[in-house]
Amino acid sequence: MSVPATEMPVSDDRLYRLLGQFQAQYASAIDEDQLEAWPDLFDDACRYIITSADNHKAGMQAGLVYADSKGMLRDRVSALREANIYEQHSYRHMIGQPLIKARDGAELQAETSFLVVRIMHSGETLLFASGRYLDHYRLDGERLLLRERIVVCDSRAIDTLLALPL
Amino acid sequence: MSVPATEMPVSDDRLYRLLGQFQAQYASAIDEDQLEAWPDLFDDACRYIITSADNHKAGMQAGLVYADSKGMLRDRVSALREANIYEQHSYRHMIGQPLIKARDGAELQAETSFLVVRIMHSGETLLFASGRYLDHYRLDGERLLLRERIVVCDSRAIDTLLALPL
Amino acid sequence: MSVPATEMPVSDDRLYRLLGQFQAQYASAIDEDQLEAWPDLFDDACRYIITSADNHKAGMQAGLVYADSKGMLRDRVSALREANIYEQHSYRHMIGQPLIKARDGAELQAETSFLVVRIMHSGETLLFASGRYLDHYRLDGERLLLRERIVVCDSRAIDTLLALPL
Repeated sequence: MSVPATEMPVSDDRLYRLLGQFQAQYASAIDEDQLEAWPDLFDDACRYIITSADNHKAGMQAGLVYADSKGMLRDRVSALREANIYEQHSYRHMIGQPLIKARDGAELQAETSFLVVRIMHSGETLLFASGRYLDHYRLDGERLLLRERIVVCDSRAIDTLLALPL
Repeated sequence: MSVPATEMPVSDDRLYRLLGQFQAQYASAIDEDQLEAWPDLFDDACRYIITSADNHKAGMQAGLVYADSKGMLRDRVSALREANIYEQHSYRHMIGQPLIKARDGAELQAETSFLVVRIMHSGETLLFASGRYLDHYRLDGERLLLRERIVVCDSRAIDTLLALPL
Repeated sequence: MSVPATEMPVSDDRLYRLLGQFQAQYASAIDEDQLEAWPDLFDDACRYIITSADNHKAGMQAGLVYADSKGMLRDRVSALREANIYEQHSYRHMIGQPLIKARDGAELQAETSFLVVRIMHSGETLLFASGRYLDHYRLDGERLLLRERIVVCDSRAIDTLLALPL
């Protein structure tokens, strides 16, 4: 799967497009009820955390959701399927422009703001969550994989128990 | 209007920019009260549908709004002008990153999430609609034209009677 | 600081990325409590105005906030720090695709839609403002600097007294 060393490096302009496309795919997997595709956006060794801005600032790592393997992400999807969570509501992610913070070869750090609205089965639409993704990617050819996504929610009042991923 | 076959094909990086610019133009035509420019973003043969996620999943095509010619889009604009709808409210579209699904020469399929807030004359701002655009474009040189836009609203509770386009 | 005339001009594809990155940096400075970095996104000679769509349409220039030097922007930041405004709430900016309106060498006009939610210390999240940025940039090498940002809020009901920048 890895790229021959002789291949042309991905330019910053291209990387910007790849990041935009990645965010769109990530949102689509969750919002369009294709949750099983969500873990495959992560690298084999990965970490996914949902926390609040207050907790993150205080250096607390635990978070509301903590997964440090692809298997845990898959388990989460299975649990959501069993709970029939999709009967009850769906999400719509709005994801901002990715801010590239650092790049070292195929390793990449980026931050991206997000807003999620929740649509209830009744038809009601609510502002559900806002915050930013603190991301660490690995570039495999032209494919981005998340090594780490820390979802830092602005509000402390986030209930993610048995809810869809952010 | 068509492009000589000898012209350089548009790269994926460029296409990504053109799609972003297109979305910005589309939103601007509606949000900045330049509705007359809105039909010109469509190809001569075109289709514009507003429907709900439930209807779309059930394979129903009718939708809340259905137009299958540029003339029908223009008629809609005229009707909105006569109803003085702009006296009452305006929209603000937030449009996500376009997800390119398929490309075959000058033909292009893409999906894009959107969020629309409605600003009432009183000053009140409300979350009005969320969903995604299922788009089919034709690339004419460096200009994108919509052959089809299906606006799939997340909520079933969308009232688009005599309202601005989404 | 200026660029040698022999340097390659920035392509439109690159410019699109630079604008996206700029918007992300602008939002990050405000939303991540790094307000001191905000004035540095402006050129030495600059103008920053917050106004409403109604006022803007009527050709009124004063606005709710008016600053015509970098010093005034820095003063505003100091005032916000003294008022301990961050104790009370934070913002999350969602910024749309930039629409490039005109370009003349290193001078650039663009318009961009925005949506801002406000997160109260209590945890409550509210839709705070929507509108568009009318921007005039100067390109210094690959760095964009705001010569002018007019923040045109859709709603007339915006209270920006002692509040964070939009």
